[in-house]
Amino acid sequence: MIYIQRREKFCAAHKLWNEKWDAETNVKIFGKCSNPNYHGHNFDLLVTVKGEIDPETGFVMNLFELKKILKANIIDKIDHKNLNLDVDFMAGKLTSSENLAVAIWDILAPIIKSKNAILHCVRLAETDNNIIEYYG
Amino acid sequence: MIYIQRREKFCAAHKLWNEKWDAETNVKIFGKCSNPNYHGHNFDLLVTVKGEIDPETGFVMNLFELKKILKANIIDKIDHKNLNLDVDFMAGKLTSSENLAVAIWDILAPIIKSKNAILHCVRLAETDNNIIEYYG
Amino acid sequence: MIYIQRREKFCAAHKLWNEKWDAETNVKIFGKCSNPNYHGHNFDLLVTVKGEIDPETGFVMNLFELKKILKANIIDKIDHKNLNLDVDFMAGKLTSSENLAVAIWDILAPIIKSKNAILHCVRLAETDNNIIEYYG
Amino acid sequence: MIYIQRREKFCAAHKLWNEKWDAETNVKIFGKCSNPNYHGHNFDLLVTVKGEIDPETGFVMNLFELKKILKANIIDKIDHKNLNLDVDFMAGKLTSSENLAVAIWDILAPIIKSKNAILHCVRLAETDNNIIEYYG
Amino acid sequence: MIYIQRREKFCAAHKLWNEKWDAETNVKIFGKCSNPNYHGHNFDLLVTVKGEIDPETGFVMNLFELKKILKANIIDKIDHKNLNLDVDFMAGKLTSSENLAVAIWDILAPIIKSKNAILHCVRLAETDNNIIEYYG
Amino acid sequence: MIYIQRREKFCAAHKLWNEKWDAETNVKIFGKCSNPNYHGHNFDLLVTVKGEIDPETGFVMNLFELKKILKANIIDKIDHKNLNLDVDFMAGKLTSSENLAVAIWDILAPIIKSKNAILHCVRLAETDNNIIEYYG
Repeated sequence: MIYIQRREKFCAAHKLWNEKWDAETNVKIFGKCSNPNYHGHNFDLLVTVKGEIDPETGFVMNLFELKKILKANIIDKIDHKNLNLDVDFMAGKLTSSENLAVAIWDILAPIIKSKNAILHCVRLAETDNNIIEYYG
Repeated sequence: MIYIQRREKFCAAHKLWNEKWDAETNVKIFGKCSNPNYHGHNFDLLVTVKGEIDPETGFVMNLFELKKILKANIIDKIDHKNLNLDVDFMAGKLTSSENLAVAIWDILAPIIKSKNAILHCVRLAETDNNIIEYYG
Repeated sequence: MIYIQRREKFCAAHKLWNEKWDAETNVKIFGKCSNPNYHGHNFDLLVTVKGEIDPETGFVMNLFELKKILKANIIDKIDHKNLNLDVDFMAGKLTSSENLAVAIWDILAPIIKSKNAILHCVRLAETDNNIIEYYG
Repeated sequence: MIYIQRREKFCAAHKLWNEKWDAETNVKIFGKCSNPNYHGHNFDLLVTVKGEIDPETGFVMNLFELKKILKANIIDKIDHKNLNLDVDFMAGKLTSSENLAVAIWDILAPIIKSKNAILHCVRLAETDNNIIEYYG
Repeated sequence: MIYIQRREKFCAAHKLWNEKWDAETNVKIFGKCSNPNYHGHNFDLLVTVKGEIDPETGFVMNLFELKKILKANIIDKIDHKNLNLDVDFMAGKLTSSENLAVAIWDILAPIIKSKNAILHCVRLAETDNNIIEYYG
Repeated sequence: MIYIQRREKFCAAHKLWNEKWDAETNVKIFGKCSNPNYHGHNFDLLVTVKGEIDPETGFVMNLFELKKILKANIIDKIDHKNLNLDVDFMAGKLTSSENLAVAIWDILAPIIKSKNAILHCVRLAETDNNIIEYYG
């Protein structure tokens, strides 16, 4: 069993806002992340897939194929978008990095499985200092 | 003459949109940066100040003081904000990194001068790959 | 279960020196790290906490709160300090990164537990090339 | 049990090419990595070793010793080399990062064991975006 | 006048070898960079262009256009190539980073000029530690 | 004329302290950098040399030779040292990065000149956020 990782970056706007709370509570809990007009990040996404090495290719899975899967299913839907307004798979959800990482996992896990490999980790960094890891 | 540099980071949303153009032209010129609901970045700001070394302190200018100047005059106004909607000194301007770098220069130059040093460069990176430098 | 990580940096002096050995043995074992007048590093601390996502906030634990815990209990005590002379929780210990990582774990684990989350890993990098990870 | 990591970098040429396939198939599977005249990378190798802290030294294993082991057994054999032509332990193998990581593991595991520690992970990055991890 | 920078990366093989010298002299002067079977790097190219800001776009030059120019004229010709064997504009030249930076300048300067901007600097890093800058 | 840069890193302890002032003034001016027992940094030194390309080698100056000059004259004297106590060329000086950059320049300029090249810049970063550049 070996692990391969592919990094992709995307630039998106979002805000943390719970519709069930009043503005004061949102500011108290989410601080500057609750700015009504949004803020944004260069998000850094690192996806880990595990499997056995195919002796014909020396690969678990072709990283070019993994790159294409990430582009078509994740990056094209969130890059240069507003996570609160533009992204179907985040509709109705708080756009915390935790929730985004879980949503990305839920999309990728069956696709990776159909390629005879196993999704192991979705790591999402909002900044160099704030990072989420989800293992399913 | 010696040069000192202070780096600060801020997270902001923006979009590139020229109000004088129709939507089609905006998309044609600005591509995915024209997304109506905004996108965002972790901007990286590097400010260079030059002057002579004070023999009493070994400093051109105390970097803690420079940090405070940047925080009060720039970072507190743009961090976790929307550059198109929330920032007084960008009102009515295209929020390209070029225009933002010039606006930051115009605010900082007189303040640095009042501290007996000279603003030399404002460097602003939207991503690791897209960077602006302005020398006045 | 999801994992969140917060990175903090601190600048400290230290030396590796075993009081039970003579100078020659210290130099032989610890090399240039045994310099009697100390050397120093920009240490990079990455703390991982795990727990379940609170549906109200989208958070395992508010990263601002984790940042405050790290500042009050760790960073304020070691930043711009001498690890051999100034830090109560390293008193009488060899100031290797291994021992420092364990000491940080011992301080943080009960605090994180009191917030209904679980400390998962303390990662401490002296340089980009020399890194310690401790999982309790 | 604590984990220590040592990073080393090396610059090498390689190409992905399966001798059992014709040129067309190699290009189809390996894309630009199949360029017959080779391409190259600044590879980034991060080796993780685990063990207990020796109370006399504060170390699991002296990182200077680990550095020497890596230099003599790995880096001196692959730095500024052609992985397909110059490296005895890759002879007859596809020079994918997966296969290289496994080969490095097979060399290091018994050496680390002879030092009373345990090899935990070999992490090899071809670029910032393409990374392999092998845990034996 | 404002400066814009675009970063591109490419992975290439090369060797330093002067055909007029015997092998011994090549090894003496170029050290491990003279390995006959090549080595390689992840090169980091940073191109600086200067000009005035167009008030309609807020740009000196559209960075997407600069990216396309770099891709078509430089990156597509050197990425995943052997600089000694595969690159027409390096034919017959020593493939030092100095010579490569000058060759890139000579290709880009007239193209940038035709876009009403001025090429200011070609910066080429072989590794984080070895960097070349050329200003024409 | 072309510019070459060599990066070296060193780990050192220091404190900012003006012997002519009382403790209170030192703390007021230098803040946490005045800690009597020192603190430390991973300093990042980037030296720029300019000259013409030698057509025989493709080099301004062999970077291996520049590396050796830096090691023998600078790095071996300051790495894993205390800048206030252990470094002859900083004796009696405030150990600000400004003063250290100037001292490094004064040592390197004549050596580089004797190699038929010209020292252009000494850049010294205490942290990623605080950087000094000196051009003589």
